[in-house]
Amino acid sequence: MIQTLQKEKDLVDKKIRTLFEEAGDLPMYHMLRYFMGYSNDLKTPSEGKHGKRTRSALLLLTANMYGGATSALDLAAAIELFHNFTLVHDDIVDNDEMRRGQETVWKLWGVPHAINSGDAQLLLTSRALLNAAYTDSVHGTKAAQTLNNHFLEVCEGQYLDFELTDKQVGDTSVTEERYFEMIRKKTAVLVGAATEAGGVAAECPEEDVSVLYEYGEALGMAYQVKDDLVSVWSNTEETGKRAYGDVYERKKTYPVLYTLEHGNREQLISLYTKKEELSDSEVGEVVQLFEEAGAKDATQRKLEEYVEQAKKCVTKLSIHDEDKEVLSSIVRKVVDTAGTLAKTAV
Amino acid sequence: MIQTLQKEKDLVDKKIRTLFEEAGDLPMYHMLRYFMGYSNDLKTPSEGKHGKRTRSALLLLTANMYGGATSALDLAAAIELFHNFTLVHDDIVDNDEMRRGQETVWKLWGVPHAINSGDAQLLLTSRALLNAAYTDSVHGTKAAQTLNNHFLEVCEGQYLDFELTDKQVGDTSVTEERYFEMIRKKTAVLVGAATEAGGVAAECPEEDVSVLYEYGEALGMAYQVKDDLVSVWSNTEETGKRAYGDVYERKKTYPVLYTLEHGNREQLISLYTKKEELSDSEVGEVVQLFEEAGAKDATQRKLEEYVEQAKKCVTKLSIHDEDKEVLSSIVRKVVDTAGTLAKTAV
Repeated sequence: MIQTLQKEKDLVDKKIRTLFEEAGDLPMYHMLRYFMGYSNDLKTPSEGKHGKRTRSALLLLTANMYGGATSALDLAAAIELFHNFTLVHDDIVDNDEMRRGQETVWKLWGVPHAINSGDAQLLLTSRALLNAAYTDSVHGTKAAQTLNNHFLEVCEGQYLDFELTDKQVGDTSVTEERYFEMIRKKTAVLVGAATEAGGVAAECPEEDVSVLYEYGEALGMAYQVKDDLVSVWSNTEETGKRAYGDVYERKKTYPVLYTLEHGNREQLISLYTKKEELSDSEVGEVVQLFEEAGAKDATQRKLEEYVEQAKKCVTKLSIHDEDKEVLSSIVRKVVDTAGTLAKTAV
Repeated sequence: MIQTLQKEKDLVDKKIRTLFEEAGDLPMYHMLRYFMGYSNDLKTPSEGKHGKRTRSALLLLTANMYGGATSALDLAAAIELFHNFTLVHDDIVDNDEMRRGQETVWKLWGVPHAINSGDAQLLLTSRALLNAAYTDSVHGTKAAQTLNNHFLEVCEGQYLDFELTDKQVGDTSVTEERYFEMIRKKTAVLVGAATEAGGVAAECPEEDVSVLYEYGEALGMAYQVKDDLVSVWSNTEETGKRAYGDVYERKKTYPVLYTLEHGNREQLISLYTKKEELSDSEVGEVVQLFEEAGAKDATQRKLEEYVEQAKKCVTKLSIHDEDKEVLSSIVRKVVDTAGTLAKTAV
C-alpha cells in the first residue's frame, strides 16, 4: 500500500528491535522476533517475511504532516506490535498453520507458548505506549490512550467475528449491519487509530482529530471490502489468491450477506449449510446467485462509497496540499491494488 | 493474608467495576466480570467467589504509608486486573476446569473466547496504567512503567514454568536454582511490583524503592515456599488441601528439587518418571525420601530465610513505626497461615 514509506518503516523496525533487545534473550522473545521477521536462526528462515508495517507507517506519516511528534516512534512501534500480537493469537484460534509463507508460532512451539508469548508481545505494546506517555506527558499520553482504546475495540471485533462465524447463514442475526460492525472493529478501527494517534501526538488542531480517524477507518473499510471483492471475483494471476477462495470456505463476506438480503436467500442458505464440501459446480452456482442478486455491483459500490468518504475527509484536514495529495493517493491505491490490508492477510 | 484491608479492597473493586462499565455490555465483558466475581447472572452464581485482592491492597497500603498518591487506585486496579488476566490464560494452558469453586472461562465459553477476553482484560490493564500516567504525569507514569516491566517478568516466569514442566526430573537442568528463578518471576515479582509501585507513586525516598521491591518479593517467595510445604505436609483439616497433593501430581516443588540434589536421586527419579499414577504407598515412599534427605527441614529453613529477609527490609524503610509493624505483621501471617497467595491458589 505505502511502498514509498521505506524510511518510516525502517525507523519503526529499528525501534521494535530495540524493545526486543532490552527485553532480553529468553527463547520466548525469539518466538516473537521470528514472527516479526527479525530472526532467521530458527527452523524456518524468515528474513523479509514480515508484514508491511502499514499501520505504523501511516501513523508516522500523519504525525509528520502536523510537524512531527517526539512520541511518534513509540506509538508507531506500539501499533505494529499490537497488530502482530493479534495475529499470533488469531492463528491459534483459526488453527492456521502458515502465515506469510512460514509456520505460525503455535504450529512451531505449541499453543501454550503461543498464548504466553503473544501476551508478552502485548506487554511490550504497553511498554511502548508508556514510553510515549513518558516522552511527551501531554500529547504522548493522550495519543497512547487513543491507541489503547482502539486496541480494545479490535478485541470486540474479534468477539463479533466469533459470534458471526458461530451462526448459520440462515440465522436472522446474520445481517449486513452486523458484518460491517464486525469488520469495522476487527480491521478498520486500527487504521483509523493510526491516523488519529499520529495527529494527536503531533498536536493537530482539535477539529482534525475525528476527521483523521474517519479517514483511516474509511480506508480500512475500503481495503476490507476490496478484499471481499477479489476473494470472489479475483483474477488469480493478478492477486495470487485462489479464485472463489472465500466461497469454497463459505466465509460470510459482504457478497453473501447482500445476496441473503436482496437475492435468492433460500437457495444460498441451502448451499451454505450443506454438510459436505462445495463442489466446483456448486461454487459456480453460488457465484451465479451473487451475480443475479447484483452482489458484485453492490460490493463495488460499497468500495466506492468508502473511497469517496476517505477522499472527502482529506479535503477537510488542515494540512498542506501536497500532504493531501499523499493521503488521496493512498486511497486511490486501494482501488487499484488487490486488498492486502485485511487483518487476515497482512 | 490482609483481612484487615477491607476498605482498600472495596475501593479497588469499585474502580475495576467502573472500568468494566465504561467498556460496555458486550458479552465478552460479562465473561470477565464473571471471572472477577462481579456477576452472578451467568450459569454459575459467583458473588463473593473472587480472589483476595491481595496485590492491589498491598499497593494501596504501601502508597498510604508514604502519604498516598492520586494515581494509586488506577495502579491498584491495574495490578489486580493483570493478575486475574494471567489466571484466565493459565486455566487454558493448564486445562483447569475449576477455579475458586466455579467453572473457568475456557470451560464455560471455549478456548477462543477465553484467549480473546483475556486479551481484552490485559488491554483494560493498560488502560488503568495509562490512567495512572494521565493522573500524575511524573510519578504515576513512573509507577505504571514499574508495574508493566514486572508484568513482563511474570510472562517470563510462565515461560520458565513451561520449560521446567516439560523436562523430566532426571534432566540436569532441573535444579533448585531454576526452580527459584521460576517461582520468583511467576509469583513473587508481582508482590514486589505491588509494594514498589505503591511507594513510587507516593513519591517515596529514592533509597526506599528497591527495599520496597525486595520486601514484596521476599514476601511472595515466602508464600510460595510455604505453599510447597503445606502441599506435602499439610494438615488437611487446617488447609483444605489434599494431603500430599503435590506428590500425587508429581509437581516439581522445592522438596523434590532438594531431594534430587541432596537425597536419593535415583530412587526419586524412578518414582517420578513412572508411567502409571503413583499409588498411596508410592506417595508414602516419596515422602519418606523427602524426609530422609532432610527436605522438610530445608523447606522450613527456606521459608524462614525469606521471612527474615522481608522483616529486615522493613527495618530499612523510612516509614512510621506503626506502619513498620503493619508490614511485619503481614510477614508473620505468612508463617502462621497456610500458603494461599501462590499464583495457582488465589
